Amino acid sequence: MQTAQRVRTILSHYKRDRPEKRANVVRLLMHGQSGGTGRLLVLPVHQGFEHGPTRSSAPNPPAYDPHYLFGLAVDGRVSALAAPLEAGSDSFAGSVPMILKANNANGLAREQDQSVAAPFRDALQPDCSAIGYTIYLGADAQYGQIEEVREATAEAREHGLAVVIWAYPRGGELSEDGRTALDVVSYAAHMAALMGAHAIKTKVPGVHPKRGDANDSFEGVETDSLPGRVAHVMRCAFEGRRIVVFSGGGAKEEGDTLDEVRAIRRGGGSGSIIGRNTFQRPRDDALAMLERIAAIHSDGET
Amino acid sequence: MQTAQRVRTILSHYKRDRPEKRANVVRLLMHGQSGGTGRLLVLPVHQGFEHGPTRSSAPNPPAYDPHYLFGLAVDGRVSALAAPLEAGSDSFAGSVPMILKANNANGLAREQDQSVAAPFRDALQPDCSAIGYTIYLGADAQYGQIEEVREATAEAREHGLAVVIWAYPRGGELSEDGRTALDVVSYAAHMAALMGAHAIKTKVPGVHPKRGDANDSFEGVETDSLPGRVAHVMRCAFEGRRIVVFSGGGAKEEGDTLDEVRAIRRGGGSGSIIGRNTFQRPRDDALAMLERIAAIHSDGET
Amino acid sequence: MQTAQRVRTILSHYKRDRPEKRANVVRLLMHGQSGGTGRLLVLPVHQGFEHGPTRSSAPNPPAYDPHYLFGLAVDGRVSALAAPLEAGSDSFAGSVPMILKANNANGLAREQDQSVAAPFRDALQPDCSAIGYTIYLGADAQYGQIEEVREATAEAREHGLAVVIWAYPRGGELSEDGRTALDVVSYAAHMAALMGAHAIKTKVPGVHPKRGDANDSFEGVETDSLPGRVAHVMRCAFEGRRIVVFSGGGAKEEGDTLDEVRAIRRGGGSGSIIGRNTFQRPRDDALAMLERIAAIHSDGET
Amino acid sequence: MQTAQRVRTILSHYKRDRPEKRANVVRLLMHGQSGGTGRLLVLPVHQGFEHGPTRSSAPNPPAYDPHYLFGLAVDGRVSALAAPLEAGSDSFAGSVPMILKANNANGLAREQDQSVAAPFRDALQPDCSAIGYTIYLGADAQYGQIEEVREATAEAREHGLAVVIWAYPRGGELSEDGRTALDVVSYAAHMAALMGAHAIKTKVPGVHPKRGDANDSFEGVETDSLPGRVAHVMRCAFEGRRIVVFSGGGAKEEGDTLDEVRAIRRGGGSGSIIGRNTFQRPRDDALAMLERIAAIHSDGET
Amino acid sequence: MQTAQRVRTILSHYKRDRPEKRANVVRLLMHGQSGGTGRLLVLPVHQGFEHGPTRSSAPNPPAYDPHYLFGLAVDGRVSALAAPLEAGSDSFAGSVPMILKANNANGLAREQDQSVAAPFRDALQPDCSAIGYTIYLGADAQYGQIEEVREATAEAREHGLAVVIWAYPRGGELSEDGRTALDVVSYAAHMAALMGAHAIKTKVPGVHPKRGDANDSFEGVETDSLPGRVAHVMRCAFEGRRIVVFSGGGAKEEGDTLDEVRAIRRGGGSGSIIGRNTFQRPRDDALAMLERIAAIHSDGET
Repeated sequence: MQTAQRVRTILSHYKRDRPEKRANVVRLLMHGQSGGTGRLLVLPVHQGFEHGPTRSSAPNPPAYDPHYLFGLAVDGRVSALAAPLEAGSDSFAGSVPMILKANNANGLAREQDQSVAAPFRDALQPDCSAIGYTIYLGADAQYGQIEEVREATAEAREHGLAVVIWAYPRGGELSEDGRTALDVVSYAAHMAALMGAHAIKTKVPGVHPKRGDANDSFEGVETDSLPGRVAHVMRCAFEGRRIVVFSGGGAKEEGDTLDEVRAIRRGGGSGSIIGRNTFQRPRDDALAMLERIAAIHSDGET
Repeated sequence: MQTAQRVRTILSHYKRDRPEKRANVVRLLMHGQSGGTGRLLVLPVHQGFEHGPTRSSAPNPPAYDPHYLFGLAVDGRVSALAAPLEAGSDSFAGSVPMILKANNANGLAREQDQSVAAPFRDALQPDCSAIGYTIYLGADAQYGQIEEVREATAEAREHGLAVVIWAYPRGGELSEDGRTALDVVSYAAHMAALMGAHAIKTKVPGVHPKRGDANDSFEGVETDSLPGRVAHVMRCAFEGRRIVVFSGGGAKEEGDTLDEVRAIRRGGGSGSIIGRNTFQRPRDDALAMLERIAAIHSDGET
Repeated sequence: MQTAQRVRTILSHYKRDRPEKRANVVRLLMHGQSGGTGRLLVLPVHQGFEHGPTRSSAPNPPAYDPHYLFGLAVDGRVSALAAPLEAGSDSFAGSVPMILKANNANGLAREQDQSVAAPFRDALQPDCSAIGYTIYLGADAQYGQIEEVREATAEAREHGLAVVIWAYPRGGELSEDGRTALDVVSYAAHMAALMGAHAIKTKVPGVHPKRGDANDSFEGVETDSLPGRVAHVMRCAFEGRRIVVFSGGGAKEEGDTLDEVRAIRRGGGSGSIIGRNTFQRPRDDALAMLERIAAIHSDGET
Repeated sequence: MQTAQRVRTILSHYKRDRPEKRANVVRLLMHGQSGGTGRLLVLPVHQGFEHGPTRSSAPNPPAYDPHYLFGLAVDGRVSALAAPLEAGSDSFAGSVPMILKANNANGLAREQDQSVAAPFRDALQPDCSAIGYTIYLGADAQYGQIEEVREATAEAREHGLAVVIWAYPRGGELSEDGRTALDVVSYAAHMAALMGAHAIKTKVPGVHPKRGDANDSFEGVETDSLPGRVAHVMRCAFEGRRIVVFSGGGAKEEGDTLDEVRAIRRGGGSGSIIGRNTFQRPRDDALAMLERIAAIHSDGET
Repeated sequence: MQTAQRVRTILSHYKRDRPEKRANVVRLLMHGQSGGTGRLLVLPVHQGFEHGPTRSSAPNPPAYDPHYLFGLAVDGRVSALAAPLEAGSDSFAGSVPMILKANNANGLAREQDQSVAAPFRDALQPDCSAIGYTIYLGADAQYGQIEEVREATAEAREHGLAVVIWAYPRGGELSEDGRTALDVVSYAAHMAALMGAHAIKTKVPGVHPKRGDANDSFEGVETDSLPGRVAHVMRCAFEGRRIVVFSGGGAKEEGDTLDEVRAIRRGGGSGSIIGRNTFQRPRDDALAMLERIAAIHSDGET
């Protein structure tokens, strides 16, 4: 089977992990609509912590209920649900792989940092396949975050958990545009790979190819197209040997989202992570959209 | 029995805790006048630490004696007494469930923070059913507090203790009014739920529906009435799957307090936590008032 | 015997400690001239650390020798010697109960803090009956100090050591007068009690009844007399269920010191802690003075 | 064999390490083109972390692939590859000794510090012979770094790992020129030796013999020539009893690089560490250059 | 034998340490030219770390070699060599007692602090008799240093190691002159004694008897002569029950150094610690000088 072969190829990039330790990576790669294709489709639902429950759920009030979010992940047949484990994981045990999003920002804070709101031990349960951490690369707090996450990464791998790093350039001297500049996004993805991530989550690289002060050369890189920029990020993630999934940020038109997904696919990206653009839509629309995204990633139609 | 059924329903929301670990949640829910109704009535007496003994007890001098406070909790048949354990717990062992309020602010301090004045091990005694922590959501110190409390929460649950989080928006960029704004209070309740609280203590949400800078939508939320606002907070606490008790703050007329309790009840709130409005009154008045509050919560008359 | 009865009453206030753990409290209460009276007379000799050896000992040069200080405690038949253990405890083992003063300020410092100069394990020796900590309530460092001391207190009680807290309002927004204001001193004593102290050391409350910004009510409190103020402090220490000893500060005339002791006694204070007013006097004068103080506390003559 | 004799002499300088603990030092000294000569030739490839992947690899795009870098180390027959272990170490296990570069700066940061991105346990694998740490001597963060590195050094030696310290003067009051001033570089090398390094990495000492404020005497030191300055650094590294390798910094002409290597050799330096000057060149040029550098160090032609 | 009697008297001052724990104190007191006299003569050679290798060794270039410094200690028959252990301790094992100087300042730093460059476990080797720590009394960092050193002291004593504290007033509000003012030096010695030092190292107290702001009384103290000032320091070190050795600071004429040693001897000081005044001189001069110093301390000729 071609798809299983793709998964085996991906697993060959994680030879440092002993075989019995890679079960959870397999689980993520074999579950749901994208199972076996080597692509991931992740539903993240920690926005309640980061932006507040009202702002997250008011556009689609059933989403106030954490069970609704679990149900969306199950029926939408995503690869994994990224969430705090606290709500619903009991009722939905075994129905969808979970990524415990261990640290979170919050919208009531004045300074940009992350607190580890879920202790590591929460991840050591049957319904949890991976642990996820955000790093604000560029922020003044990044040195401490890097050490914290690297330590957690090593521990997670020892327990056979997959590790997902949300590699977010932010803070320090980075401008708003700089956060999605191509050299910055690709740098962040590279660091996450060096830090031991099995999968990396970045933002879609923007049209600003460089920070103003950078002398990076992009000769030979197709910076004008999103597929070209995605391809450069993948190259910086160990020449494509690491899984990189892309997010598109805030809510937008379905057509725009699908165009972006197609571009990610053409650039060789490993998948999508898509939250507000699904759970803030009515359930049927969201399920249809997840199906379309999975189809784009899976059949490779470009 | 109808009431026991309500308690069983509440317990079904904590399936992540193994059954033998939930004994203390049951104990809180079955004790006192509100026992079996699924509501909680809590008497908090740590104001001596937070505001000083003179300011707390001078209006009703017998309250200088910690034994008086214990006696009030016992004779007032509340669900639990929230207190430092140091005084009286020896003489009153077994007569009322206790919530060890582990961290406390203090009125001599210049900066707003909480110190953990009671070590965790203090809670590991027969007379202690729960451990309580305050978090100042929005304050600059919140990131550290969140990690501290989350760690303690995990440890408490392992020991079978119930966990109560005082979710207090305060500090940072929050104005005085912002602390009780509806989006802020509901956000705080949501975070406490995500952090693993069995029960959450918030302030009654005020008439200010939003922070100025927030773009939260309250379409479909009845923000003009207190019951409507309470209902929104409950919804943000996992669609009502978490116990949320409300406090009314400083001393006020008994009639006003009872009106507030009725509104909390109508909005689906899980109960009241009421300190100065009881122990600063003469003992007979306080006992009568506790009885009236319990009655409102219990029979559901609105 | 009446006195033993008093000690038994005091011990009944510490029921949280298991009986075999209270041996050291008994030891303090039964030793020396005040033994069995329920009062304590403590000789503190850590001023060398806090003010320097020259300033402490020059007025009475034999006091440079730590053995002199031990001898004064032994021959003065005080309840306990509060000291760093380093000097003399070996030669005088068993002759007087010791309170290991574990943290200390020092006069060479620019900022007001305390360093724990004696590790906890130093207290785990036969000649040590109690461990003592200073907290600067009101200082910016107080949150950390409270946690540090609370942890040490719990550990000490587990080892059966008595715990003495030097509850010193200082720093932050407290004025010089504010440090001894009645509401502040009584607040500090209350916090020390909540933190688990068996005995509390405070300064004699001054004639300034309140901080300027405090709205505490002193109705019914006799604030004009020192006995009245002492009585209020005792009331705030769990209605008199905690031992509170008072210090008079710097050197003064013997007559003034004795008047102060009488006022403490009339107000129901548990005893005196008196250092420079004894060891800076010639030995015979000091011994005579200790005898007079013990007599006032013991026979209750007012 | 003369060369093996040289290695034995070097090993005699590490008598504090028990024999079975020095296997990895031998491994570094016996591998590759410089094997047995007592010299080291190290290929460092952590520039992706420190300067970003694009800036590091764009000049020679195949270098985006970590396997390319491993291949260069293997085919270039260097003594060791200094790298994060994350990429490639699985595929190339056993083919080249590795130095785990445990802490790293990063180009997205605003302040100059190092974060330990690789936990110590990563070094405890068969393919890792040494652990490497950077210290910014002179920086405000240096006190903490020194303690961190000294602790790691002791632990590494206990596990039989060799320890390499990147001794980089930087920060604090050091000017740009001061970083490579002779007294500063030799001071840094001396400190690294005292901290327990088996091998030390410094920059080539510059033409500025002193910091302005230093009154060090260089009488008898040949400060005008690079060999003289290198000899002084070696002397300050325990009279040549420690291995010191020198780096030349950014990319330059091959002729200039080789001249520098010859000067290092004449001054008695223990070898070179050379990254961007190799991997940013086409592969054949890089391999030829590594061969020439190894030849200079090995045959001692000056 | 009279001298052994002196050592026995000194040991009687350390009764808190169990007998089998005092072997290393005996070792220091019985080794070398001063062996058995109750005096210590210490050679400190950590100036390379503190002032840099060039500044330390250029005046006498053989001193660049750590083996030279060890040889000087062995042939000079000093009581102990105070050094980082890293260099030479292997080749000279057993030939001279060593004091591991565990923390060190460094001349490249901008702020005055000490980093613990040698981990405690380094001291647990046969060639190490004592562990040494510097405290900057008066500096803002002193509170942390005091706790750190007190903890290390307790641990060292448990392992039977002697403890030497370099009691250095420095920083905070102390002027240059204030650092050697008599009340300050004697205060520092007193604190070191209270912190558990077996031996204390201070600077020779200067002609400035007091800090300006101090109201210490020196009535009865002979402050005009160095012997008088030394005697006061000894008195403040538990009435002479602690070993106090004095240093003279930077290089000076031999005659001046010997005069100072005689004054220390007359004042009852326990010995000298003398570094740059020996190792920066030619070897034969240094050996002769060490002999003269030892003779002054040993025969008590004044």
